[in-house]
Amino acid sequence: MIIPEESDSVPIEEQKKYENYLFYFTRNSEIFHEGQPGDGCMYLLRSGEVGIFRDVGGQEEMTATVSAVNIIGEMSLLMGWDRTATIRVISNTAILYKFRYFDLNIIYSTAAYSEMLIKRLINDLKIVNDRMVETNTKYGLIDEQYTNLMKHGKIVFSAMNYVLENIANDSVINSKEWHYISAVREMMQNYVGEYLPEFKEVVSSNDETGFQNLKRIENDQLLPGILKNIIGKK
Amino acid sequence: MIIPEESDSVPIEEQKKYENYLFYFTRNSEIFHEGQPGDGCMYLLRSGEVGIFRDVGGQEEMTATVSAVNIIGEMSLLMGWDRTATIRVISNTAILYKFRYFDLNIIYSTAAYSEMLIKRLINDLKIVNDRMVETNTKYGLIDEQYTNLMKHGKIVFSAMNYVLENIANDSVINSKEWHYISAVREMMQNYVGEYLPEFKEVVSSNDETGFQNLKRIENDQLLPGILKNIIGKK
Repeated sequence: MIIPEESDSVPIEEQKKYENYLFYFTRNSEIFHEGQPGDGCMYLLRSGEVGIFRDVGGQEEMTATVSAVNIIGEMSLLMGWDRTATIRVISNTAILYKFRYFDLNIIYSTAAYSEMLIKRLINDLKIVNDRMVETNTKYGLIDEQYTNLMKHGKIVFSAMNYVLENIANDSVINSKEWHYISAVREMMQNYVGEYLPEFKEVVSSNDETGFQNLKRIENDQLLPGILKNIIGKK
Repeated sequence: MIIPEESDSVPIEEQKKYENYLFYFTRNSEIFHEGQPGDGCMYLLRSGEVGIFRDVGGQEEMTATVSAVNIIGEMSLLMGWDRTATIRVISNTAILYKFRYFDLNIIYSTAAYSEMLIKRLINDLKIVNDRMVETNTKYGLIDEQYTNLMKHGKIVFSAMNYVLENIANDSVINSKEWHYISAVREMMQNYVGEYLPEFKEVVSSNDETGFQNLKRIENDQLLPGILKNIIGKK
């Protein structure tokens, strides 16, 4: 790698030390592209400035800039992630050191670079951890709602199934009404069977929880008086 | 801090360099305790061995051991986490350096310690990231199930509400049957109102989606023939 004369911002001894890792770029050069699979490389921006570009609804937008000295793209090296942004040089020139995992020892031996990577990793850790806390909160909330829906959905469907099955046994119902009431039950069974398999068992004729759930609804004082006959008949 | 004669595993110059951070422990000393609030300290185990103890169903169990040289408890310093385990010395003696956030520069200047902390941070990052991926997967799954329950629960409840309200309008039903059918609807409304507020609106008399949802059920060929009269009447 031959460094042009004007790139004198990095001492020549350092350039020599890092010559196997050193890359020289000019304005508008792309370091990597959003969505590209992780290539296991991390960059140390040694001189110059880069822009971080992201696709925002089909339009590329520069969301941030990073100036030397800084670390770029470490999450791809560490986690094997695809590139989450495009990095492009926005200064006249830029010098980057490109490191793979087994090159990290070069970082350890330079206190300033160690500090930079440690601080970056701590920051990454905080970001990932915050996201996890956020996701856990959302998950806990939806899990609670889902559990509630499942529990009470089962109760109400099974109780309605039981009631609709057993109204017909009441002597006041004639065959015409029986058909209507059976049809309501059949509609519920059909729909649940097709779209709510979680509740399929509790709307079947073999379900044994219907009566208990009806008792439960009575205990909660939510059962209209006329339907208490049905419980009484058991 | 006076280091006893036998602790000669750490060179005296190093002991002097770290004297403000150095702590000497004997067997069974507890470094920190599970559940204790994060005290913002990280430890470098410089000599000796410690056990990691966790409460497993009320019984303390040693789940791992850590030998010098190693870093312990960095997540409390970095993330402010409570201590997730109890650390106790299991060798005759142990020397630990205790660092706060602003002491990290001591780590940067020693390549071996930088390497240790960077590798530890990368590992922490992987663990937290794996957990996030796992939680996201669980979240996505339950979100899908919840969305399905909400969608189809609304349809079936609102259609049943509509049917039960409108069967009564059919001339074949006499007042006795009307009471039964109304009571089934009332029970559904009562129960949903109390335990399934997500569906409260669709089982009210003002709900306008009942008829559309009944049509939808008919289109899905899930509607018993006798109930088609009700749609016909609209």
